[in-house]
Amino acid sequence: MESGLALPRTTFQRQVLDRLGLDICSGRYAPGQILPSENELCERFAFSRIVIREAVKSLAAKGMLEVRRKVGTLVLEPAEWNLFDPDIITWRSRTLSVDRQMSRDLMELRRIVEPAAARLAAVRAGDDDRGAIRAAFEAMRRAVAGEGDYVAADLAFHAAILDACGNQFVQQMQNAVSAILRTGFEIISQKPGGPAYSLPMHEDLCRAIEDGDADAAERAVLSLIKQAEEDLDGRLKSEE
Amino acid sequence: MESGLALPRTTFQRQVLDRLGLDICSGRYAPGQILPSENELCERFAFSRIVIREAVKSLAAKGMLEVRRKVGTLVLEPAEWNLFDPDIITWRSRTLSVDRQMSRDLMELRRIVEPAAARLAAVRAGDDDRGAIRAAFEAMRRAVAGEGDYVAADLAFHAAILDACGNQFVQQMQNAVSAILRTGFEIISQKPGGPAYSLPMHEDLCRAIEDGDADAAERAVLSLIKQAEEDLDGRLKSEE
Repeated sequence: MESGLALPRTTFQRQVLDRLGLDICSGRYAPGQILPSENELCERFAFSRIVIREAVKSLAAKGMLEVRRKVGTLVLEPAEWNLFDPDIITWRSRTLSVDRQMSRDLMELRRIVEPAAARLAAVRAGDDDRGAIRAAFEAMRRAVAGEGDYVAADLAFHAAILDACGNQFVQQMQNAVSAILRTGFEIISQKPGGPAYSLPMHEDLCRAIEDGDADAAERAVLSLIKQAEEDLDGRLKSEE
Repeated sequence: MESGLALPRTTFQRQVLDRLGLDICSGRYAPGQILPSENELCERFAFSRIVIREAVKSLAAKGMLEVRRKVGTLVLEPAEWNLFDPDIITWRSRTLSVDRQMSRDLMELRRIVEPAAARLAAVRAGDDDRGAIRAAFEAMRRAVAGEGDYVAADLAFHAAILDACGNQFVQQMQNAVSAILRTGFEIISQKPGGPAYSLPMHEDLCRAIEDGDADAAERAVLSLIKQAEEDLDGRLKSEE
Protein backbone atom coordinates (compact mmCIF):
# COMPACT_ATOMS: atom_id res chain seq x y z
CA MET A 1 0.00 0.00 0.00
CA GLU A 2 1.22 3.46 -0.80
CA SER A 3 -0.98 5.48 1.55
CA GLY A 4 2.12 6.44 3.49
CA LEU A 5 0.82 9.91 4.30
CA ALA A 6 -1.57 8.76 7.00
CA LEU A 7 0.66 10.11 9.73
CA PRO A 8 3.32 12.79 9.46
CA ARG A 9 6.45 10.77 8.99
CA THR A 10 8.91 13.23 7.55
CA THR A 11 10.64 15.88 9.60
CA PHE A 12 8.94 18.56 7.47
CA GLN A 13 5.48 17.25 8.22
CA ARG A 14 6.27 16.97 11.92
CA GLN A 15 7.61 20.54 11.95
CA VAL A 16 4.52 22.01 10.30
CA LEU A 17 2.20 19.91 12.47
CA ASP A 18 3.94 21.07 15.67
CA ARG A 19 4.00 24.72 14.63
CA LEU A 20 0.34 24.78 13.59
CA GLY A 21 -0.66 22.83 16.71
CA LEU A 22 1.23 25.24 18.95
CA ASP A 23 -0.21 28.26 17.12
CA ILE A 24 -3.73 26.99 17.78
CA CYS A 25 -3.04 26.18 21.45
CA SER A 26 -1.39 29.55 22.07
CA GLY A 27 -4.33 31.39 20.48
CA ARG A 28 -2.49 32.74 17.40
CA TYR A 29 -5.20 30.90 15.47
CA ALA A 30 -8.02 30.99 18.01
CA PRO A 31 -11.17 28.83 18.19
CA GLY A 32 -13.87 30.23 15.93
CA GLN A 33 -11.31 31.68 13.49
CA ILE A 34 -10.71 30.56 9.91
CA LEU A 35 -7.16 29.33 9.33
CA PRO A 36 -5.13 31.22 6.68
CA SER A 37 -5.49 29.72 3.20
CA GLU A 38 -3.29 26.86 2.00
CA ASN A 39 -1.38 29.36 -0.17
CA GLU A 40 -0.71 31.68 2.76
CA LEU A 41 0.43 28.76 4.94
CA CYS A 42 2.71 27.51 2.14
CA GLU A 43 4.32 30.93 2.03
CA ARG A 44 4.62 31.25 5.78
CA PHE A 45 6.24 27.85 6.31
CA ALA A 46 7.99 27.68 2.93
CA PHE A 47 6.80 24.10 2.55
CA SER A 48 4.86 22.43 -0.22
CA ARG A 49 1.10 22.25 -0.39
CA ILE A 50 1.11 18.51 0.30
CA VAL A 51 3.01 18.95 3.58
CA ILE A 52 0.57 21.66 4.73
CA ARG A 53 -2.42 19.58 3.69
CA GLU A 54 -1.29 16.51 5.62
CA ALA A 55 -0.73 18.62 8.77
CA VAL A 56 -4.25 20.05 8.43
CA LYS A 57 -5.65 16.52 8.05
CA SER A 58 -3.87 15.38 11.20
CA LEU A 59 -5.19 18.37 13.15
CA ALA A 60 -8.70 17.66 11.82
CA ALA A 61 -8.42 14.02 12.95
CA LYS A 62 -7.50 15.31 16.42
CA GLY A 63 -10.67 17.42 16.47
CA MET A 64 -8.87 20.79 16.34
CA LEU A 65 -9.87 21.82 12.81
CA GLU A 66 -12.84 21.30 10.55
CA VAL A 67 -12.49 21.73 6.80
CA ARG A 68 -15.65 23.41 5.49
CA ARG A 69 -16.20 23.58 1.78
CA LYS A 70 -16.29 27.15 0.42
CA VAL A 71 -15.77 28.60 3.92
CA GLY A 72 -12.27 27.43 4.78
CA THR A 73 -10.71 25.59 7.68
CA LEU A 74 -12.32 26.45 11.01
CA VAL A 75 -10.46 26.24 14.33
CA LEU A 76 -12.80 24.33 16.68
CA GLU A 77 -13.44 24.97 20.40
CA PRO A 78 -11.17 23.07 22.85
CA ALA A 79 -14.17 21.00 24.04
CA GLU A 80 -14.13 19.42 20.54
CA TRP A 81 -10.42 18.61 20.69
CA ASN A 82 -9.21 15.20 21.66
CA LEU A 83 -7.82 16.41 25.00
CA PHE A 84 -6.07 13.10 25.79
CA ASP A 85 -4.10 13.11 22.51
CA PRO A 86 -0.38 13.12 23.39
CA ASP A 87 0.44 15.85 20.81
CA ILE A 88 -2.34 18.14 22.05
CA ILE A 89 -1.20 17.66 25.64
CA THR A 90 2.39 18.48 24.67
CA TRP A 91 1.34 21.65 22.82
CA ARG A 92 -1.04 22.80 25.54
CA SER A 93 1.46 22.16 28.31
CA ARG A 94 3.60 24.93 26.81
CA THR A 95 0.81 27.35 27.72
CA LEU A 96 0.24 25.85 31.18
CA SER A 97 1.81 28.74 33.10
CA VAL A 98 -0.67 31.17 31.49
CA ASP A 99 -3.70 28.90 31.13
CA ARG A 100 -5.00 28.84 34.71
CA GLN A 101 -8.12 26.90 33.77
CA MET A 102 -6.06 24.10 32.26
CA SER A 103 -3.68 24.07 35.25
CA ARG A 104 -6.61 23.77 37.62
CA ASP A 105 -8.32 21.07 35.56
CA LEU A 106 -5.14 19.00 35.24
CA MET A 107 -4.44 19.26 38.97
CA GLU A 108 -8.00 18.09 39.65
CA LEU A 109 -7.54 15.23 37.19
CA ARG A 110 -4.40 14.25 39.08
CA ARG A 111 -6.36 14.27 42.36
CA ILE A 112 -9.05 12.05 40.81
CA VAL A 113 -6.82 9.60 38.98
CA GLU A 114 -3.66 9.15 41.03
CA PRO A 115 -5.19 8.05 44.37
CA ALA A 116 -7.36 5.51 42.54
CA ALA A 117 -4.37 4.30 40.50
CA ALA A 118 -2.24 3.94 43.65
CA ARG A 119 -4.96 1.85 45.35
CA LEU A 120 -5.31 -0.39 42.31
CA ALA A 121 -1.51 -0.70 41.95
CA ALA A 122 -1.22 -1.78 45.60
CA VAL A 123 -3.67 -4.59 44.90
CA ARG A 124 -2.57 -5.61 41.41
CA ALA A 125 1.12 -4.80 40.88
CA GLY A 126 3.11 -7.85 39.79
CA ASP A 127 6.80 -8.40 40.50
CA ASP A 128 7.85 -6.53 37.35
CA ASP A 129 5.67 -3.54 38.27
CA ARG A 130 7.04 -3.42 41.82
CA GLY A 131 10.56 -3.65 40.40
CA ALA A 132 9.93 -0.72 38.03
CA ILE A 133 8.43 1.45 40.80
CA ARG A 134 11.33 0.65 43.16
CA ALA A 135 13.93 1.30 40.41
CA ALA A 136 12.40 4.71 39.65
CA PHE A 137 12.38 5.55 43.35
CA GLU A 138 16.07 4.61 43.67
CA ALA A 139 16.86 6.86 40.68
CA MET A 140 15.08 9.71 42.50
CA ARG A 141 17.14 9.04 45.61
CA ARG A 142 20.38 9.13 43.57
CA ALA A 143 19.24 12.38 41.86
CA VAL A 144 18.70 14.01 45.27
CA ALA A 145 22.26 12.95 46.11
CA GLY A 146 23.42 14.78 42.96
CA GLU A 147 23.53 11.96 40.43
CA GLY A 148 21.11 12.06 37.48
CA ASP A 149 17.95 13.94 36.48
CA TYR A 150 15.40 14.32 39.28
CA VAL A 151 12.42 15.34 37.10
CA ALA A 152 12.88 12.37 34.73
CA ALA A 153 13.07 9.92 37.64
CA ASP A 154 10.01 11.43 39.34
CA LEU A 155 7.98 11.20 36.09
CA ALA A 156 9.09 7.58 35.64
CA PHE A 157 8.00 6.81 39.21
CA HIS A 158 4.46 8.15 38.73
CA ALA A 159 4.20 6.59 35.25
CA ALA A 160 5.19 3.19 36.68
CA ILE A 161 2.35 3.42 39.21
CA LEU A 162 -0.25 4.30 36.57
CA ASP A 163 1.12 1.43 34.51
CA ALA A 164 0.85 -1.02 37.41
CA CYS A 165 -2.82 -0.22 38.07
CA GLY A 166 -3.81 -2.54 35.22
CA ASN A 167 -6.71 -0.39 33.95
CA GLN A 168 -6.36 0.54 30.28
CA PHE A 169 -8.25 3.83 30.61
CA VAL A 170 -6.31 4.98 33.66
CA GLN A 171 -3.06 4.04 31.92
CA GLN A 172 -4.01 6.18 28.95
CA MET A 173 -4.48 9.23 31.15
CA GLN A 174 -0.77 9.04 31.90
CA ASN A 175 0.17 11.67 29.30
CA ALA A 176 -2.30 14.19 30.69
CA VAL A 177 -1.23 13.56 34.27
CA SER A 178 2.45 13.74 33.24
CA ALA A 179 1.91 17.22 31.79
CA ILE A 180 0.86 18.67 35.15
CA LEU A 181 3.44 16.53 36.98
CA ARG A 182 6.21 17.91 34.76
CA THR A 183 5.17 21.49 35.44
CA GLY A 184 4.90 20.79 39.15
CA PHE A 185 8.22 18.96 39.29
CA GLU A 186 10.03 21.77 37.52
CA ILE A 187 8.79 24.10 40.24
CA ILE A 188 9.69 21.71 43.07
CA SER A 189 13.12 20.90 41.69
CA GLN A 190 13.86 24.65 41.45
CA LYS A 191 12.90 25.06 45.12
CA PRO A 192 16.03 24.60 47.29
CA GLY A 193 15.57 21.31 49.17
CA GLY A 194 12.30 20.56 47.35
CA PRO A 195 13.24 17.11 46.03
CA ALA A 196 14.86 16.09 49.34
CA TYR A 197 11.68 17.18 51.13
CA SER A 198 9.31 15.10 49.00
CA LEU A 199 11.56 12.01 48.83
CA PRO A 200 10.23 10.36 52.05
CA MET A 201 6.62 10.74 50.78
CA HIS A 202 7.63 8.92 47.59
CA GLU A 203 9.28 6.20 49.67
CA ASP A 204 6.03 5.79 51.68
CA LEU A 205 4.13 5.35 48.43
CA CYS A 206 6.66 2.87 47.02
CA ARG A 207 6.58 0.80 50.21
CA ALA A 208 2.77 0.84 50.48
CA ILE A 209 2.51 -0.65 46.98
CA GLU A 210 5.20 -3.23 47.80
CA ASP A 211 3.21 -4.15 50.93
CA GLY A 212 -0.06 -4.32 48.97
CA ASP A 213 -1.56 -1.73 51.37
CA ALA A 214 -4.13 0.25 49.35
CA ASP A 215 -5.10 2.64 52.17
CA ALA A 216 -1.47 3.59 52.87
CA ALA A 217 -0.81 4.05 49.14
CA GLU A 218 -3.77 6.42 48.85
CA ARG A 219 -2.66 8.41 51.93
CA ALA A 220 0.89 8.74 50.56
CA VAL A 221 -0.24 9.95 47.14
CA LEU A 222 -2.64 12.46 48.71
CA SER A 223 0.25 13.96 50.75
CA LEU A 224 2.31 14.28 47.59
CA ILE A 225 -0.53 15.97 45.69
CA LYS A 226 -1.21 18.37 48.57
CA GLN A 227 2.44 19.39 48.57
CA ALA A 228 2.45 19.84 44.76
CA GLU A 229 -0.72 21.96 44.91
CA GLU A 230 0.81 24.24 47.52
CA ASP A 231 3.98 24.62 45.46
CA LEU A 232 2.03 25.33 42.27
CA ASP A 233 -0.24 27.85 44.04
CA GLY A 234 2.80 29.61 45.46
CA ARG A 235 4.36 29.81 42.01
CA LEU A 236 1.19 31.08 40.34
CA LYS A 237 0.70 33.72 43.06
CA SER A 238 4.30 34.88 42.74
CA GLU A 239 3.68 35.39 38.99
CA GLU A 240 0.63 37.55 39.55
CA MET B 1 -8.83 24.82 0.26
CA GLU B 2 -9.62 21.51 -1.32
CA SER B 3 -8.31 19.13 1.34
CA GLY B 4 -11.84 17.99 1.98
CA LEU B 5 -10.79 14.41 2.69
CA ALA B 6 -9.43 15.07 6.17
CA LEU B 7 -12.42 13.41 7.80
CA PRO B 8 -14.78 10.90 6.26
CA ARG B 9 -17.62 13.04 5.10
CA THR B 10 -19.44 10.87 2.62
CA THR B 11 -21.70 8.04 3.62
CA PHE B 12 -19.35 5.64 1.81
CA GLN B 13 -16.34 6.73 3.80
CA ARG B 14 -18.29 6.51 7.05
CA GLN B 15 -19.50 3.01 6.14
CA VAL B 16 -16.02 1.71 5.38
CA LEU B 17 -14.57 3.39 8.47
CA ASP B 18 -17.22 1.85 10.73
CA ARG B 19 -16.88 -1.61 9.20
CA LEU B 20 -13.08 -1.64 9.40
CA GLY B 21 -13.17 -0.18 12.93
CA LEU B 22 -15.65 -2.83 14.06
CA ASP B 23 -13.63 -5.58 12.37
CA ILE B 24 -10.54 -4.52 14.31
CA CYS B 25 -12.40 -4.22 17.64
CA SER B 26 -14.08 -7.59 17.22
CA GLY B 27 -10.76 -9.28 16.40
CA ARG B 28 -11.49 -10.13 12.74
CA TYR B 29 -8.32 -8.11 12.07
CA ALA B 30 -6.48 -8.63 15.34
CA PRO B 31 -3.59 -6.61 16.85
CA GLY B 32 -0.28 -7.74 15.38
CA GLN B 33 -1.88 -8.79 12.07
CA ILE B 34 -1.33 -7.14 8.70
CA LEU B 35 -4.53 -5.74 7.19
CA PRO B 36 -5.55 -7.19 3.78
CA SER B 37 -4.11 -5.22 0.86
CA GLU B 38 -5.86 -2.17 -0.55
CA ASN B 39 -6.93 -4.27 -3.55
CA GLU B 40 -8.45 -6.97 -1.38
CA LEU B 41 -10.29 -4.37 0.72
CA CYS B 42 -11.57 -2.67 -2.45
CA GLU B 43 -12.99 -5.99 -3.57
CA ARG B 44 -14.47 -6.83 -0.20
CA PHE B 45 -16.25 -3.50 0.26
CA ALA B 46 -16.83 -2.79 -3.45
CA PHE B 47 -15.64 0.77 -2.90
CA SER B 48 -12.94 2.76 -4.65
CA ARG B 49 -9.33 2.85 -3.56
CA ILE B 50 -9.62 6.47 -2.37
CA VAL B 51 -12.46 5.63 0.02
CA ILE B 52 -10.49 2.71 1.50
CA ARG B 53 -7.34 4.83 1.77
CA GLU B 54 -9.09 7.62 3.68
CA ALA B 55 -10.62 5.11 6.11
CA VAL B 56 -7.15 3.65 6.73
CA LYS B 57 -5.77 7.16 7.35
CA SER B 58 -8.50 7.89 9.88
CA LEU B 59 -7.82 4.63 11.70
CA ALA B 60 -4.09 5.42 11.68
CA ALA B 61 -4.79 8.87 13.18
CA LYS B 62 -6.76 7.13 15.95
CA GLY B 63 -3.73 4.93 16.69
CA MET B 64 -5.33 1.67 15.51
CA LEU B 65 -3.21 1.12 12.39
CA GLU B 66 0.32 1.87 11.31
CA VAL B 67 1.21 2.00 7.64
CA ARG B 68 4.64 0.42 7.18
CA ARG B 69 6.37 0.76 3.86
CA LYS B 70 6.96 -2.57 2.11
CA VAL B 71 5.38 -4.47 5.01
CA GLY B 72 1.76 -3.37 4.87
CA THR B 73 -0.70 -1.90 7.33
CA LEU B 74 -0.23 -3.27 10.82
CA VAL B 75 -3.07 -3.48 13.37
CA LEU B 76 -1.65 -1.99 16.58
CA GLU B 77 -2.23 -3.17 20.17
CA PRO B 78 -5.22 -1.57 22.02
CA ALA B 79 -2.80 0.22 24.38
CA GLU B 80 -1.72 2.28 21.32
CA TRP B 81 -5.31 3.16 20.38
CA ASN B 82 -6.85 6.43 21.39
CA LEU B 83 -9.21 4.81 23.90
CA PHE B 84 -11.20 8.00 24.55
CA ASP B 85 -12.00 8.52 20.86
CA PRO B 86 -15.81 8.49 20.48
CA ASP B 87 -15.69 6.18 17.41
CA ILE B 88 -13.41 3.67 19.13
CA ILE B 89 -15.65 3.65 22.20
CA THR B 90 -18.72 3.06 20.02
CA TRP B 91 -17.06 0.17 18.16
CA ARG B 92 -15.67 -1.41 21.30
CA SER B 93 -18.94 -1.11 23.20
CA ARG B 94 -20.43 -3.58 20.70
CA THR B 95 -18.02 -6.18 22.11
CA LEU B 96 -18.62 -5.22 25.76
CA SER B 97 -20.63 -8.33 26.63
CA VAL B 98 -17.72 -10.56 25.57
CA ASP B 99 -14.78 -8.32 26.51
CA ARG B 100 -14.68 -8.83 30.30
CA GLN B 101 -11.46 -6.85 30.67
CA MET B 102 -13.00 -3.80 29.02
CA SER B 103 -16.21 -4.16 31.08
CA ARG B 104 -14.18 -4.29 34.28
CA ASP B 105 -11.97 -1.34 33.27
CA LEU B 106 -14.94 0.83 32.30
CA MET B 107 -16.78 0.02 35.52
CA GLU B 108 -13.64 1.00 37.45
CA LEU B 109 -13.37 4.20 35.43
CA ARG B 110 -16.97 4.97 36.35
CA ARG B 111 -16.16 4.41 40.04
CA ILE B 112 -13.17 6.77 39.75
CA VAL B 113 -14.75 9.52 37.69
CA GLU B 114 -18.41 9.74 38.69
CA PRO B 115 -18.03 10.31 42.46
CA ALA B 116 -15.46 13.05 41.79
CA ALA B 117 -17.69 14.59 39.11
CA ALA B 118 -20.71 14.55 41.46
CA ARG B 119 -18.70 16.29 44.20
CA LEU B 120 -17.48 18.97 41.77
CA ALA B 121 -20.98 19.39 40.31
CA ALA B 122 -22.42 19.94 43.81
CA VAL B 123 -19.93 22.76 44.31
CA ARG B 124 -19.92 24.31 40.83
CA ALA B 125 -23.24 23.67 39.07
CA GLY B 126 -24.88 26.88 37.86
CA ASP B 127 -28.62 27.40 37.47
CA ASP B 128 -28.57 26.03 33.91
CA ASP B 129 -26.71 22.89 35.03
CA ARG B 130 -29.12 22.27 37.90
CA GLY B 131 -32.03 22.78 35.51
CA ALA B 132 -30.62 20.21 33.06
CA ILE B 133 -30.02 17.65 35.81
CA ARG B 134 -33.51 18.14 37.24
CA ALA B 135 -35.13 17.96 33.78
CA ALA B 136 -33.34 14.67 33.04
CA PHE B 137 -34.46 13.29 36.41
CA GLU B 138 -38.09 14.26 35.71
CA ALA B 139 -37.85 12.49 32.33
CA MET B 140 -36.66 9.35 34.19
CA ARG B 141 -39.61 9.60 36.55
CA ARG B 142 -42.02 9.88 33.61
CA ALA B 143 -40.34 6.90 31.91
CA VAL B 144 -40.85 4.78 35.03
CA ALA B 145 -44.52 5.78 34.87
CA GLY B 146 -44.58 4.44 31.30
CA GLU B 147 -43.99 7.61 29.29
CA GLY B 148 -40.77 7.89 27.26
CA ASP B 149 -37.41 6.11 27.02
CA TYR B 150 -35.84 5.28 30.38
CA VAL B 151 -32.33 4.52 29.11
CA ALA B 152 -32.09 7.80 27.17
CA ALA B 153 -33.24 9.82 30.20
CA ASP B 154 -30.82 8.02 32.52
CA LEU B 155 -27.89 8.67 30.14
CA ALA B 156 -28.89 12.34 29.89
CA PHE B 157 -28.98 12.57 33.70
CA HIS B 158 -25.43 11.24 34.14
CA ALA B 159 -24.13 13.28 31.18
CA ALA B 160 -25.60 16.46 32.70
CA ILE B 161 -23.70 15.80 35.94
CA LEU B 162 -20.37 15.27 34.13
CA ASP B 163 -21.09 18.42 32.18
CA ALA B 164 -21.81 20.43 35.34
CA CYS B 165 -18.50 19.46 36.98
CA GLY B 166 -16.71 22.15 34.97
CA ASN B 167 -13.53 20.14 34.39
CA GLN B 168 -12.67 19.76 30.69
CA PHE B 169 -10.88 16.41 31.13
CA VAL B 170 -13.67 14.87 33.20
CA GLN B 171 -16.23 16.14 30.68
CA GLN B 172 -14.32 14.44 27.89
CA MET B 173 -14.53 11.08 29.66
CA GLN B 174 -18.29 11.24 29.21
CA ASN B 175 -18.29 9.05 26.09
CA ALA B 176 -16.32 6.31 27.81
CA VAL B 177 -18.48 6.43 30.92
CA SER B 178 -21.64 6.49 28.78
CA ALA B 179 -20.60 3.23 27.08
CA ILE B 180 -20.63 1.30 30.36
CA LEU B 181 -23.69 3.19 31.59
CA ARG B 182 -25.61 2.22 28.46
CA THR B 183 -24.74 -1.47 28.90
CA GLY B 184 -25.66 -1.31 32.58
CA PHE B 185 -28.92 0.54 31.94
CA GLU B 186 -29.99 -1.93 29.32
CA ILE B 187 -29.60 -4.66 31.91
CA ILE B 188 -31.39 -2.73 34.65
CA SER B 189 -34.24 -1.62 32.43
CA GLN B 190 -34.79 -5.29 31.42
CA LYS B 191 -35.01 -6.26 35.08
CA PRO B 192 -38.66 -6.06 36.25
CA GLY B 193 -38.92 -3.11 38.64
CA GLY B 194 -35.24 -2.12 38.01
CA PRO B 195 -35.84 1.50 36.99
CA ALA B 196 -38.41 2.04 39.77
CA TYR B 197 -35.92 0.63 42.27
CA SER B 198 -33.07 2.95 41.30
CA LEU B 199 -35.21 6.10 40.88
CA PRO B 200 -34.99 7.24 44.54
CA MET B 201 -31.16 6.97 44.41
CA HIS B 202 -31.17 9.25 41.38
CA GLU B 203 -33.45 11.66 43.21
CA ASP B 204 -31.01 11.73 46.16
CA LEU B 205 -28.20 12.58 43.75
CA CYS B 206 -30.22 15.29 42.01
CA ARG B 207 -31.21 16.86 45.34
CA ALA B 208 -27.66 16.72 46.76
CA ILE B 209 -26.37 18.68 43.76
CA GLU B 210 -29.22 21.18 44.08
CA ASP B 211 -28.33 21.58 47.77
CA GLY B 212 -24.62 21.98 46.98
CA ASP B 213 -23.87 19.02 49.29
CA ALA B 214 -20.74 17.30 47.92
CA ASP B 215 -20.66 14.51 50.53
CA ALA B 216 -24.30 13.56 49.93
CA ALA B 217 -23.74 13.66 46.16
CA GLU B 218 -20.79 11.29 46.45
CA ARG B 219 -22.76 8.90 48.72
CA ALA B 220 -25.70 8.85 46.28
CA VAL B 221 -23.53 8.14 43.26
CA LEU B 222 -21.68 5.36 45.10
CA SER B 223 -25.01 3.65 45.90
CA LEU B 224 -25.98 3.82 42.25
CA ILE B 225 -22.65 2.37 41.11
CA LYS B 226 -22.84 -0.44 43.67
CA GLN B 227 -26.29 -1.37 42.40
CA ALA B 228 -25.09 -1.25 38.76
CA GLU B 229 -22.09 -3.45 39.57
CA GLU B 230 -24.29 -6.05 41.23
CA ASP B 231 -26.67 -6.06 38.25
CA LEU B 232 -23.79 -6.35 35.76
CA ASP B 233 -22.12 -9.13 37.76
CA GLY B 234 -25.40 -11.03 37.92
CA ARG B 235 -25.83 -10.71 34.16
CA LEU B 236 -22.25 -11.76 33.38
CA LYS B 237 -22.55 -14.79 35.70
CA SER B 238 -25.85 -15.83 34.14
CA GLU B 239 -24.08 -15.82 30.73
CA GLU B 240 -21.29 -18.12 31.88
